[in-house]
Amino acid sequence: MHHFARLDRERVRRVGVPEVILGEGKRVDHLLSIVRALSERKLGALLSRPTPAQVRALRAWHPEPGRPGLRFLADDRIVRVPGPLGTRYRHGVAAILTAGTSDVPLAEESRAVLRCLGIRVVRAYDVGVAGLHRLLTALHRVEAQRPEVYLVFAGREGALPTVVAGLVMAPVVGVPTSVGYGRGGRGEAALNAMLQSCAPLAVVNIDAAVPAALFAAQRFAERAPAGARRVLRRGP
Amino acid sequence: MHHFARLDRERVRRVGVPEVILGEGKRVDHLLSIVRALSERKLGALLSRPTPAQVRALRAWHPEPGRPGLRFLADDRIVRVPGPLGTRYRHGVAAILTAGTSDVPLAEESRAVLRCLGIRVVRAYDVGVAGLHRLLTALHRVEAQRPEVYLVFAGREGALPTVVAGLVMAPVVGVPTSVGYGRGGRGEAALNAMLQSCAPLAVVNIDAAVPAALFAAQRFAERAPAGARRVLRRGP
Amino acid sequence: MHHFARLDRERVRRVGVPEVILGEGKRVDHLLSIVRALSERKLGALLSRPTPAQVRALRAWHPEPGRPGLRFLADDRIVRVPGPLGTRYRHGVAAILTAGTSDVPLAEESRAVLRCLGIRVVRAYDVGVAGLHRLLTALHRVEAQRPEVYLVFAGREGALPTVVAGLVMAPVVGVPTSVGYGRGGRGEAALNAMLQSCAPLAVVNIDAAVPAALFAAQRFAERAPAGARRVLRRGP
Amino acid sequence: MHHFARLDRERVRRVGVPEVILGEGKRVDHLLSIVRALSERKLGALLSRPTPAQVRALRAWHPEPGRPGLRFLADDRIVRVPGPLGTRYRHGVAAILTAGTSDVPLAEESRAVLRCLGIRVVRAYDVGVAGLHRLLTALHRVEAQRPEVYLVFAGREGALPTVVAGLVMAPVVGVPTSVGYGRGGRGEAALNAMLQSCAPLAVVNIDAAVPAALFAAQRFAERAPAGARRVLRRGP
Amino acid sequence: MHHFARLDRERVRRVGVPEVILGEGKRVDHLLSIVRALSERKLGALLSRPTPAQVRALRAWHPEPGRPGLRFLADDRIVRVPGPLGTRYRHGVAAILTAGTSDVPLAEESRAVLRCLGIRVVRAYDVGVAGLHRLLTALHRVEAQRPEVYLVFAGREGALPTVVAGLVMAPVVGVPTSVGYGRGGRGEAALNAMLQSCAPLAVVNIDAAVPAALFAAQRFAERAPAGARRVLRRGP
Amino acid sequence: MHHFARLDRERVRRVGVPEVILGEGKRVDHLLSIVRALSERKLGALLSRPTPAQVRALRAWHPEPGRPGLRFLADDRIVRVPGPLGTRYRHGVAAILTAGTSDVPLAEESRAVLRCLGIRVVRAYDVGVAGLHRLLTALHRVEAQRPEVYLVFAGREGALPTVVAGLVMAPVVGVPTSVGYGRGGRGEAALNAMLQSCAPLAVVNIDAAVPAALFAAQRFAERAPAGARRVLRRGP
Amino acid sequence: MHHFARLDRERVRRVGVPEVILGEGKRVDHLLSIVRALSERKLGALLSRPTPAQVRALRAWHPEPGRPGLRFLADDRIVRVPGPLGTRYRHGVAAILTAGTSDVPLAEESRAVLRCLGIRVVRAYDVGVAGLHRLLTALHRVEAQRPEVYLVFAGREGALPTVVAGLVMAPVVGVPTSVGYGRGGRGEAALNAMLQSCAPLAVVNIDAAVPAALFAAQRFAERAPAGARRVLRRGP
Amino acid sequence: MHHFARLDRERVRRVGVPEVILGEGKRVDHLLSIVRALSERKLGALLSRPTPAQVRALRAWHPEPGRPGLRFLADDRIVRVPGPLGTRYRHGVAAILTAGTSDVPLAEESRAVLRCLGIRVVRAYDVGVAGLHRLLTALHRVEAQRPEVYLVFAGREGALPTVVAGLVMAPVVGVPTSVGYGRGGRGEAALNAMLQSCAPLAVVNIDAAVPAALFAAQRFAERAPAGARRVLRRGP
Repeated sequence: MHHFARLDRERVRRVGVPEVILGEGKRVDHLLSIVRALSERKLGALLSRPTPAQVRALRAWHPEPGRPGLRFLADDRIVRVPGPLGTRYRHGVAAILTAGTSDVPLAEESRAVLRCLGIRVVRAYDVGVAGLHRLLTALHRVEAQRPEVYLVFAGREGALPTVVAGLVMAPVVGVPTSVGYGRGGRGEAALNAMLQSCAPLAVVNIDAAVPAALFAAQRFAERAPAGARRVLRRGP
Repeated sequence: MHHFARLDRERVRRVGVPEVILGEGKRVDHLLSIVRALSERKLGALLSRPTPAQVRALRAWHPEPGRPGLRFLADDRIVRVPGPLGTRYRHGVAAILTAGTSDVPLAEESRAVLRCLGIRVVRAYDVGVAGLHRLLTALHRVEAQRPEVYLVFAGREGALPTVVAGLVMAPVVGVPTSVGYGRGGRGEAALNAMLQSCAPLAVVNIDAAVPAALFAAQRFAERAPAGARRVLRRGP
Repeated sequence: MHHFARLDRERVRRVGVPEVILGEGKRVDHLLSIVRALSERKLGALLSRPTPAQVRALRAWHPEPGRPGLRFLADDRIVRVPGPLGTRYRHGVAAILTAGTSDVPLAEESRAVLRCLGIRVVRAYDVGVAGLHRLLTALHRVEAQRPEVYLVFAGREGALPTVVAGLVMAPVVGVPTSVGYGRGGRGEAALNAMLQSCAPLAVVNIDAAVPAALFAAQRFAERAPAGARRVLRRGP
Repeated sequence: MHHFARLDRERVRRVGVPEVILGEGKRVDHLLSIVRALSERKLGALLSRPTPAQVRALRAWHPEPGRPGLRFLADDRIVRVPGPLGTRYRHGVAAILTAGTSDVPLAEESRAVLRCLGIRVVRAYDVGVAGLHRLLTALHRVEAQRPEVYLVFAGREGALPTVVAGLVMAPVVGVPTSVGYGRGGRGEAALNAMLQSCAPLAVVNIDAAVPAALFAAQRFAERAPAGARRVLRRGP
Repeated sequence: MHHFARLDRERVRRVGVPEVILGEGKRVDHLLSIVRALSERKLGALLSRPTPAQVRALRAWHPEPGRPGLRFLADDRIVRVPGPLGTRYRHGVAAILTAGTSDVPLAEESRAVLRCLGIRVVRAYDVGVAGLHRLLTALHRVEAQRPEVYLVFAGREGALPTVVAGLVMAPVVGVPTSVGYGRGGRGEAALNAMLQSCAPLAVVNIDAAVPAALFAAQRFAERAPAGARRVLRRGP
Repeated sequence: MHHFARLDRERVRRVGVPEVILGEGKRVDHLLSIVRALSERKLGALLSRPTPAQVRALRAWHPEPGRPGLRFLADDRIVRVPGPLGTRYRHGVAAILTAGTSDVPLAEESRAVLRCLGIRVVRAYDVGVAGLHRLLTALHRVEAQRPEVYLVFAGREGALPTVVAGLVMAPVVGVPTSVGYGRGGRGEAALNAMLQSCAPLAVVNIDAAVPAALFAAQRFAERAPAGARRVLRRGP
Repeated sequence: MHHFARLDRERVRRVGVPEVILGEGKRVDHLLSIVRALSERKLGALLSRPTPAQVRALRAWHPEPGRPGLRFLADDRIVRVPGPLGTRYRHGVAAILTAGTSDVPLAEESRAVLRCLGIRVVRAYDVGVAGLHRLLTALHRVEAQRPEVYLVFAGREGALPTVVAGLVMAPVVGVPTSVGYGRGGRGEAALNAMLQSCAPLAVVNIDAAVPAALFAAQRFAERAPAGARRVLRRGP
Repeated sequence: MHHFARLDRERVRRVGVPEVILGEGKRVDHLLSIVRALSERKLGALLSRPTPAQVRALRAWHPEPGRPGLRFLADDRIVRVPGPLGTRYRHGVAAILTAGTSDVPLAEESRAVLRCLGIRVVRAYDVGVAGLHRLLTALHRVEAQRPEVYLVFAGREGALPTVVAGLVMAPVVGVPTSVGYGRGGRGEAALNAMLQSCAPLAVVNIDAAVPAALFAAQRFAERAPAGARRVLRRGP
């Protein structure tokens, strides 16, 4: 597209989920160029974690007349560039839990991505292990929807994913969040606790709400008839 | 069972995979007591990573006449206590890849667990990213089996799971291995690289071959009619 | 006593608990000299974690005729030098819980110290959070004894002390254990998780079973009429 | 209460101390909603460490006429939402010491919590070990009040709790503070030094003034007749 | 030059590359004094990473009439003080690759230095390993220029230098960039992955674009007839 | 003095150097109270590293008429409260060296302290090991003054103190500075390199310019006739 | 070759240096199978760091009659499997320096690899910076051979590569060694110091003598007429 | 001397203390060659920390007839090769203190070095801060000898050097020891605590008993008439 960016439009056909363009770390003009190019080619996309300066620039930008504008989701942490994402998913439900209130903005990021892909989400927030009763009540309500995958967000001591993975049959992905201070703060204790868990549990990085959502989405992806194999046959 | 151990036979009904008893860290007599109690009750189980002293004791132990003996798999890293595990899985294939030859013993641990559960495994070993050609040839062969989940083992720089997760549609779980020396050795660099990956990738802890296998197995587990929900309804 | 060791016999009067002599790190002959000197003066003491070489030497040593011999407790991790410890405690119960079987040897170290001091202990082992049901059953049994303090041992993800501290009224002290491998292993994840806990929880160092026992014992210590204050008045 | 927060009003009955709502990390509107809901239900609460933006919002907020307003304590680090906290404590004294002047704001946080709960506090500030004389003079004055528990705050080398725990009979809780620069700064050296202490000493996380206060308060909590046990009997 | 700075004008004769003056960490007036002194003596130089305040001061500064002004390159990250640098290089091509768009500003820093020294650069940006196809296409184009050295920039999992070093014959220098968040973020995972690489790969520090450029430039430096040896003969 | 601060005026008699009051981390009003109290009692003192807000407050403050005002040294990093410090030193010279220009502000901090105490300082700045020639020339000039102690400041790779300690007979104290970026930046590499040095070298913490100056000053302190011993005799 | 190993014989054509098979971490029978297969195909190879058990097995193994046996170099740290390596290098000299005597075994590993490839090596050992005089004398002798690349080994404070890179024109690769104890020991301080160096310096991992040798060897590799490009053209 | 070792006999004239040859990490035959060469030239030397294998070889070695044999000190941790060391010191006393019994072997290492150099040592062992009374009694006795420098050894929380440096006028050097387990163990907490100390305190690395002794010895070294300056004048 430009000398500084090459979008990978084939990725969704190979791996079943679209590339999500990370805002953080990119220059504002670089990001705008990417969005403009996508819009001109009538291609949809997802942006994540734009910086405040990027959000201002994106809100000030408008597509050519007749084209739909950007949609800002999850308190501006996810931006939907309208147009096809190239994905198709079967029906199914994903569950999102958080241990505390401070984890909610990250959980909403995952939820926005999953909903942009058309996947239904059931959520239960602020259900950490220091109050087992509220956790079990909430989990009972969530299980009634028969979710096929759980994303469980927790900062601080990060115990919630372990407890949930000891109670439900669907795979649980732990998402440590950068909540907490002092030794083990900023998500370090939570990440390590999840890695040490005795329960069957896979994890993503601290605050990695978008990769977690994409990993969960793959479960619902419908394999294109000859998709990934063809890519491999002709060489990458 | 004893004052020092309480087996969780309900776990398999709640979460779809059996508890695996870790040998490391347990006293030899504690481990033998557990095996004896299981055998007396005609319950099956899996043990992982017995120490050399534990292996000697287990090999010297024999069940009561007429009962089948222990099976030692994956170079004695997995031990099968005969008897029902309480699990049932639908058909399906899991793929196991390793970046190097030194990762093979860990990969074989995962493979032994999956095979004990009746899940078919396709494997490709020593296919690291420093030789892309051999990786792509191997991946082409593996994809032909249409695996539904990948376990990708890599030590040192840990790049293989990222590359694979950029090429296939099934979910990829990275398993960092304690291979490598110096700064970032013992699996630290590999784990962190997988956590930083741009591809949709979930990880388990360094050398966590058994948890990875259980996480993969959950994908094939058949949900018991009223399983986890009942557990939750009556309280844990 | 010797140029290499000065026992602090006043400590028990100042702080309510006796000094415990750590075996690890001391030369065998230094440790024997200390024991011999104590025995000659008819003073009791506790030794912790003698090395195998120290245990051999201590078992080979015998006091002068008519004096009782050493007692070896908790699989030789605690040694009681007979004679008065200078402490007096009111009645009461302490509870000791462990998350797994591998934590038991450390828990038994704490229990041996508390029992040497005459404090009653109720215990529940292998009741980790991956199986909530067995935890709650065990906790119900323990609470029936109305313990005034809890020592909760956990390695790996270290979640048990947090869950317990959210359920009981007595103060909970978390003891991380060096159980677990890979990132966060050797007790690091457990320690940090306990430090991050939202529940009211104090912690001691990894594997610090003896300091935890002493901290718990202080709760039962009877303050000598003019004890610590006198020490302070005349200057330390 | 809301989809993003579930207050645990039962906690005080189970564990003897009320939940304290942490400001940091919460969105301003989330925090205000919680306060509003509490006030409407005439429930008291404690907030800790509101951010400057949260403080501004809280100061601008007023309860319905006739209801008492918020009280701001310890330089706005603790906020008291008026109304019952559901706690009752017997008489007794807690001691709070700091090694330096920079530790004072944190110590005042603990003191505000304890005083909100009705517990008397005796304090001695800036009494670090580099000047033993002033420490011993101050400790003599403090001991005269016969405190039943000590909270000892220290940053930098964190030696004060060890020295105090070698001189007094009441249990000592070390609170490392994020004071100090360079290697071991931000409380790391202090925390580790306290964990390594030879004296009977329990610790909380760096700057964890509120958890330390709650742990100390438990000592004075009066057990409700059937409290925690009932919770456990009916399941959490 | 001043009591606070001593420029090493001999360095270029000894080691083949000029000293580059780092802006960060220097006081604005110190930096201006250095530039003024250089200009008065008609000596050229390179400055790197001036802070915003330094850039403002440098832009406001003007040399004496008739002398050329400063040149600002790579978005003000490199500043060229006009005048001779004392270097001479043979013809040749260096290649610069980046894994992502966020690495581009650092790569442009290296490119500006190399171009100031008169070395030709071929570049390929945003060609990370998650999309092998675009990497191989770009590498094919780059190899056609027969570069004699590669600088490969990558943050996050840092896999690109390993893959490139497995495909090309010219030496590859990995430059980890401070891109990425959570565990292993800020370039830590990338640096360690490069250090662990199985391919022949040398690395520089995180974000060390200027040292990497100088290391690459040495390859093209023409050895002065008696240069370094004379320095050694007379003693440094 | 106040409930939040207790000055240790005896310290200088015990240890030969005055207490230096650290500004950082103290509340502005606390710091001003201390200064006011000192001034009223006609006691001198040194403050270090006041924050910008503290500097503004200190500059706005004026002593009672007839008393000399505060003196601001080393770019406001050291503030001299006029009045006796209680110290007396014999003649002698201390040397201060820095590896780079960015280390100069810290070196000037040490120099200001030493000069306030009346100790003569010879300095050589920006003489790092990458240019041995300028180092040796400078060292020759410094040695001509026969310094009795060296303070050697270095960030980044921290090699200068090792090289100097291999060339001179006076004791060398290494002062690592928080200069440098990436892995080992902020002084970490420099501190560790100094700790690993083969040369006889003692170190202080990163950026610890004031403690280094006090440690050096002790060498010149004249022992009061009965000083420290008397303190010890009557107890601390 | 086997299911556990796939040798990359094309690598030398692509990257100019042969694969070196690391012994550490491989099972003895796996390693022997690889050697046997190479010998049967009359292919040469290099093995590095065989464990003592591997060395015993390799010494006991003998090729078929008429084939030359294995050669053990550098105290058995490098093993040469006879036969063509597929490499060709132009004339030239590489220099190898060490800071201490303890670095010599690692330096000899690099030297053995370079000599197996036919590259001439000049060496100077135990010339660390604490004795500048012996360093400069040795460097003078080494420079007389006009080396085109330097490998400089140093543990502890790791300053030697920086000093050398400030004196010579050829590129310098620093090799940190796991020499040293305490904080920054096992090569950590040395690695970080080299990464922080102001001089143009690239580094490899701690103890990475073989990768360093291969990186140096690439400088002398003669590019095959259509080598790497062809590999890229047909896809990897 | 050999290609693997170059002794620096000039060092003692430049820096006032002799080089001490570290045993650890050297091959046995290398170390013996060095000792043999020294003995043949009738030069004295100190060896530190020989490994058990080195001790055996050294004890089996005998000098030529008529020459005195090696002396083994401090439990074989220091070995004296007889012959002149080239040093001369004025009279004076150094003090050595340890916090615990486990620190004694390291303290004895320092004492052996100082005594080989002819410096008188006064010692007080096992006087840690958990028992202030025994510390003050011991310190009173030590101060009576008027030591000019203190070496204070402490592991675990490392508080002793801080307390001593707040009580005495002579410079205090803290020596952290690798005593302690869990978080902050192996001397890490002690080192960091000493670096954070508010008292004037310089430190050496963990277990660095020999460098500490040499640093202390410099205080007593008599400057050769034209020593270091001449070295610098003629270039190193």
